[in-house]
Amino acid sequence: MSHIVFHYHVAGDSSDIAARSESLLLEQTVELSRAAASDAWVRENIVGEVLSIKPRESGGFAVTIAQPLRTTALDPAQFLNVAFGNSSLQPDVKLVGVEPPDEFFKTFRGPRFGANALREKLGAFGRALTATALKPMGLPPEKLAALAYSFAVAGIDVIKDDHGLADHDFCPFAQRVELCQRAVEKANAETGGRTIYAPNLIGSPASIQRQFAFAREAGVGAVLLAPMLVGPALLHELASAAALPIIAHPAFGGSEWIAPEVLFGDIFKWFGADASIYPHLGGRFSYSRDTCLSLAARLNSSAHGLKPAFPVPAGGVKTSRVREVLSFYGGDTMLLVGGSLLESGEVIQRTKDFVAEVASVSKALAS
Amino acid sequence: MSHIVFHYHVAGDSSDIAARSESLLLEQTVELSRAAASDAWVRENIVGEVLSIKPRESGGFAVTIAQPLRTTALDPAQFLNVAFGNSSLQPDVKLVGVEPPDEFFKTFRGPRFGANALREKLGAFGRALTATALKPMGLPPEKLAALAYSFAVAGIDVIKDDHGLADHDFCPFAQRVELCQRAVEKANAETGGRTIYAPNLIGSPASIQRQFAFAREAGVGAVLLAPMLVGPALLHELASAAALPIIAHPAFGGSEWIAPEVLFGDIFKWFGADASIYPHLGGRFSYSRDTCLSLAARLNSSAHGLKPAFPVPAGGVKTSRVREVLSFYGGDTMLLVGGSLLESGEVIQRTKDFVAEVASVSKALAS
Repeated sequence: MSHIVFHYHVAGDSSDIAARSESLLLEQTVELSRAAASDAWVRENIVGEVLSIKPRESGGFAVTIAQPLRTTALDPAQFLNVAFGNSSLQPDVKLVGVEPPDEFFKTFRGPRFGANALREKLGAFGRALTATALKPMGLPPEKLAALAYSFAVAGIDVIKDDHGLADHDFCPFAQRVELCQRAVEKANAETGGRTIYAPNLIGSPASIQRQFAFAREAGVGAVLLAPMLVGPALLHELASAAALPIIAHPAFGGSEWIAPEVLFGDIFKWFGADASIYPHLGGRFSYSRDTCLSLAARLNSSAHGLKPAFPVPAGGVKTSRVREVLSFYGGDTMLLVGGSLLESGEVIQRTKDFVAEVASVSKALAS
Repeated sequence: MSHIVFHYHVAGDSSDIAARSESLLLEQTVELSRAAASDAWVRENIVGEVLSIKPRESGGFAVTIAQPLRTTALDPAQFLNVAFGNSSLQPDVKLVGVEPPDEFFKTFRGPRFGANALREKLGAFGRALTATALKPMGLPPEKLAALAYSFAVAGIDVIKDDHGLADHDFCPFAQRVELCQRAVEKANAETGGRTIYAPNLIGSPASIQRQFAFAREAGVGAVLLAPMLVGPALLHELASAAALPIIAHPAFGGSEWIAPEVLFGDIFKWFGADASIYPHLGGRFSYSRDTCLSLAARLNSSAHGLKPAFPVPAGGVKTSRVREVLSFYGGDTMLLVGGSLLESGEVIQRTKDFVAEVASVSKALAS
């Protein structure tokens, strides 16, 4: 069977990096010293190999390890375990790259819909997509539905719940989904638009399956899911079965342990995200220019026979930054502008301005 | 409704810590500026409060924030979201404490069995418990079962799967569980012992439910689950329904984002772990003395009307360290010795030595 290659950054100095890399290799699978892992079949078929150890300019080492693909059981949770299970507890090591073999992608098929199907669904071609969020937490379903109506009338492509909208007593999931979806349908009927609503699924796996079934029945166009909050393997489970596009949210994703482009770019996409939200540079978060570009490129890619997914830069993006952000990413992007559309009472006008700016900048960039 | 208090460590300097704390407060719930969160009910019932900001001796600040409990929807995933959802993406902040109000514990009831029921099940009183792991990944079910038999004959209390044992082609879950459980039953019948076997549940939530049902049917005494790999909310879901004790494993738990005593001590226990494994100081990991003591104390505690759970220090612990480790933690501990029991062919003798040492040290410490 083939191998899956993992890239780590490891702190430390040259005197013990060989031993550290060996322990990192063994920690992910056999959890034994090489001497204690004495079974011949295990040595031959389970114990991987340190491929290279290279000093990094900024200090520490780049360590590349190959593990037999079969150790992952081609299971999403066990894949994460082999990638960064016990070793994630060690502060001296970060996971910065994963290169699975082709065989991996027979199980991990990526987006079920992908960027093109989303464009078809939305009737949105030759331009970036627009998205916004229903917020804040605390509004009752009626007020969120009124907001959804305003966004949809203004012609936005995707209206997602804020990822903090749960099944709250003050805003029950079922009622919210029903009212918001009806509001969006009403607006679409009036404008001829094709706005979609994506409710947030959050809870234990059983709750999420119930929410998913309800949302589908209600006719929503997509769903929002924060894989790290609800379990990344659940993303794979839903995407494998799903009849709806899934927008992934990065909440509870941590920082400085798995490179964001790997977690939100590669892994979420491999597990089935059709679009992946992440903090664009310059907002409330701190991703670098290179991280953002790399993250988007991985989502946009059709490598390994996977459908492209949409990068969704977010986190403090405003209409005034549309030109900057689209120049940075290009048009195969879903731009998420949240809070700033709500900063005055003129939600419809502000949203129209955002939608028009995205259309205009997309056109200018394409020509 | 009552409030839940969160403690964070935030890097930065005094010039902007007030604004940083305000944004941290708002990021977890409304995700809007205070100005934009203009709805009166939202301001009154959803927006929490920064309770204190104190400089830390080691630099940065201790920031304490109260959020209305209702924002958590009393849902495990949404609780994590309010605690450390978006803010976990920001490298300047760590979650170091959570103080839920009594009301929280009506939903999050902690261990369903707890330490005393585990002692009853094992017939093990007045001493620390002993545990070991079936490994390495790669052995076929027959060999793991032979190992389980050896451990059980030697009188160990708990035999868990290594957390990397998944539903592998070379060691299918069902066959492994069946054979290992039969092997342990055979040994118990011969020795009069009460050793229990705890198989590892790993996969997507649907797979885990199937595995759980199978393991229960096979008669196992407990199960092992790595909540961060399979989704922490699944721990709560299983514990709420479960007829088996759950041993939590820390894999994929990360480092330097949520304090280990909070994640593996408090949160895993609140979500239902009957025992929680964590790296003891001096092993392959790097927890401090204070972290380990605090983690164990939280698990041992019966605060909030929860049953005590077992701390399970692990990670390179050996028989030669039993005295040191038990002197450190006291007798309400489950000592997990893994790899070192396998380092020569004399598994039964090594295990007997470990079991005898724990009994002897426990007795000495109690007198």
